[in-house]
Amino acid sequence: MYLAKVYVTLKPTVNDPQGLTIRGALHDLGFQNVTSVRAGKYMELKLDGPNPAEAKAQLNEMCRQLLANPVIENFRFELEEISANPE
Amino acid sequence: MYLAKVYVTLKPTVNDPQGLTIRGALHDLGFQNVTSVRAGKYMELKLDGPNPAEAKAQLNEMCRQLLANPVIENFRFELEEISANPE
Repeated sequence: MYLAKVYVTLKPTVNDPQGLTIRGALHDLGFQNVTSVRAGKYMELKLDGPNPAEAKAQLNEMCRQLLANPVIENFRFELEEISANPE
Repeated sequence: MYLAKVYVTLKPTVNDPQGLTIRGALHDLGFQNVTSVRAGKYMELKLDGPNPAEAKAQLNEMCRQLLANPVIENFRFELEEISANPE
């Protein structure tokens, strides 16, 4: 069983109103030294799989088809093997 | 100038309808081997600061006050020093 940490971020040229809003709120709270905020998504997936290579290929497909919008977003992920005991 | 990568995740005991929806959609797409999805947030902040210790203290306050909801969410961040050239 694998734990995948998936990071989805807007491409650098894409406008990020959510990030701008967060930056404005941080300024209002007194954190004037924050110059830039970019908002993104983070997901943790657990998946069964025969081997890391196949798990990576599957994750790539998941990101392309559902988890990220490849037109405006970049994605990356980290994969680690975990024990299959329930949490 | 520092780049901070902030990760906000729901606490393990908190119900995650967004994650369940994503898992359902992945199953519909044929990724039946995905057993769990937890959705979270990811932010990249750039901030000026005199030293890493103060930047970390500020980030901790930002997370507690605005970026995360400490009642139901955990947060963690990584800090790295970057050059201040415009991107």
